[in-house]
Amino acid sequence: MPENVNRQIILKSRPAGMPKESDFDLIETPIPTPEFGQVLIKSLWMSLDPYMRGRITSSPVGDVIESEAVGRVMESRLEGFKAGDIVRGRIGWQEYGLLDVTSAFPVNRDYGPISTSVGVLGMPGLTAYFGLLDVCEPKPGDTVVVSAASGAVGAVVGQIAKIGGCRVVGIAGSDEKVSYIVDELGFDAGINYKTQDVDRALSVAAPDGVDCYFDNVGGPITEAVLAHLAMYSRTVICGRISEYNEAEPSMGPRILRYLHSTRSRIQGFTVNQYPQQFEEGRAQLARWVKSGQIKYREDIVEGFENSPKAFIGQLGGANFGKLLIKVSDE
Amino acid sequence: MPENVNRQIILKSRPAGMPKESDFDLIETPIPTPEFGQVLIKSLWMSLDPYMRGRITSSPVGDVIESEAVGRVMESRLEGFKAGDIVRGRIGWQEYGLLDVTSAFPVNRDYGPISTSVGVLGMPGLTAYFGLLDVCEPKPGDTVVVSAASGAVGAVVGQIAKIGGCRVVGIAGSDEKVSYIVDELGFDAGINYKTQDVDRALSVAAPDGVDCYFDNVGGPITEAVLAHLAMYSRTVICGRISEYNEAEPSMGPRILRYLHSTRSRIQGFTVNQYPQQFEEGRAQLARWVKSGQIKYREDIVEGFENSPKAFIGQLGGANFGKLLIKVSDE
Repeated sequence: MPENVNRQIILKSRPAGMPKESDFDLIETPIPTPEFGQVLIKSLWMSLDPYMRGRITSSPVGDVIESEAVGRVMESRLEGFKAGDIVRGRIGWQEYGLLDVTSAFPVNRDYGPISTSVGVLGMPGLTAYFGLLDVCEPKPGDTVVVSAASGAVGAVVGQIAKIGGCRVVGIAGSDEKVSYIVDELGFDAGINYKTQDVDRALSVAAPDGVDCYFDNVGGPITEAVLAHLAMYSRTVICGRISEYNEAEPSMGPRILRYLHSTRSRIQGFTVNQYPQQFEEGRAQLARWVKSGQIKYREDIVEGFENSPKAFIGQLGGANFGKLLIKVSDE
Repeated sequence: MPENVNRQIILKSRPAGMPKESDFDLIETPIPTPEFGQVLIKSLWMSLDPYMRGRITSSPVGDVIESEAVGRVMESRLEGFKAGDIVRGRIGWQEYGLLDVTSAFPVNRDYGPISTSVGVLGMPGLTAYFGLLDVCEPKPGDTVVVSAASGAVGAVVGQIAKIGGCRVVGIAGSDEKVSYIVDELGFDAGINYKTQDVDRALSVAAPDGVDCYFDNVGGPITEAVLAHLAMYSRTVICGRISEYNEAEPSMGPRILRYLHSTRSRIQGFTVNQYPQQFEEGRAQLARWVKSGQIKYREDIVEGFENSPKAFIGQLGGANFGKLLIKVSDE
């Protein structure tokens, strides 16, 4: 440790609507000292995820921004952890943080590069795994539609659905992203919602209707998909990036008719419902990544201080793949 | 048969929005003669139900209006049926109709008055039974909210939920209906949506949130209820009477946030999904009716020719209890 300085990014003012860089503040504090039962972690990779917009609404002004990160143990006063171990946990937007037995999770380096522990083998990958398999319950031959399809969650959803024998249609926000999911990830079709009419495009891409919809976006894209539901379809509401900046619900066409006429199900979901099964899911994802059946793409931003800008970009769809802040070299 | 005249009510013109009496026509045709495998039924009680609004949108102009009825076999050319038997089936809005082995269902007179075979022991009762128990999955102590609570379905939903040890809140459209569900049926609370703010009233009536919502109405009432969902709640979309007259979806506040934040489920439903279990459900409902644990109320309109007016009234909430047309004395 060259200096006793911990850079932290805190919430300076609560944003109304889309956050601005001025809503965040970078401060310097002393590096904390672990007490009995704690480990001091130096952050290596921070995970930026759209759901964090909700935390910014609910957490106090002045607090360090919440997020997951993976880092190295610098000092341990917790049994089972030693200096040099790689550990994952909700360290937040700071260069150093303390974790304890409830919040420090060892990373299995055999699974892959440590950045994957907060990506394809971490919360986003597990979200795709349990949200698709447990809530959408896809069957071979089903048509599965996923929004934000090139993102950290969506890309894994589509690839698992392909492994399971489904027809997969991805919705994304650029031709480059659409090419990626179709040509590199093997989706059957892609829709660029910025240049195409999603309703019309789905009539072509999902002519037999949508059996499973994995929703990361909410809003008009989702309303267009719901109009194409097949009988007895299953939709998981995993994210609502188009709505996160709204304080009050915006207006849209009423959707219950689609559920009613097709006897379909929609269910809200977060991966935190499945803690007992995380290791099972992680091991399966790791096997698929090793075998090449699941590919992943990282969008790496260098420099801790760029986190607010990168996060704001992500809320507008600027990232391409799993968004990571590289905080420090390993 | 005094004369060979069968009065029928047919769709004269397809209504846009709320149907008018002039959208229907009363015609006279000869009483049909059963062919081999058919029975001729004289209708005694016709069931009027809000879902029929949808059939009116999809069935051809000139057709007899579809509905269920219970009547007496006048002539049988179908094995197992004889003149005088009481039979239920989709006879439609006519005084006489033909049914066959796929469409004629014997009525068990031991269960109760024959009108109940199209009410509390028929489709409405079974809808309540399977929609609540199978889709909402209530547990003792859950708060169950039901809309159109004094209606043929809603009243049964609330009473089954009470039998199962739930706290039950009903939403209805008059103080008289609210008194009925609370004072006569034993619901824990009632809300008159015409005079009360449903959102505020639910804060009082369902302070721990809504675990199960049995929805018969859609629209603003449902949107108010969804804002009160408890964690892991279950909603069944059984009816959408507030939306049936809309050709295109109307606009409302987007509801996915409520599902997402509470990990809740909404599911579309019709009772036709459960044909194998109808007899089991009917037998259970009959036991509850006999024991007095389920009460029912019939709103009887005399005179076949009054069906269009009664049906239009029903779409506006004018009926109080199960709406029946008394077509003929037994």
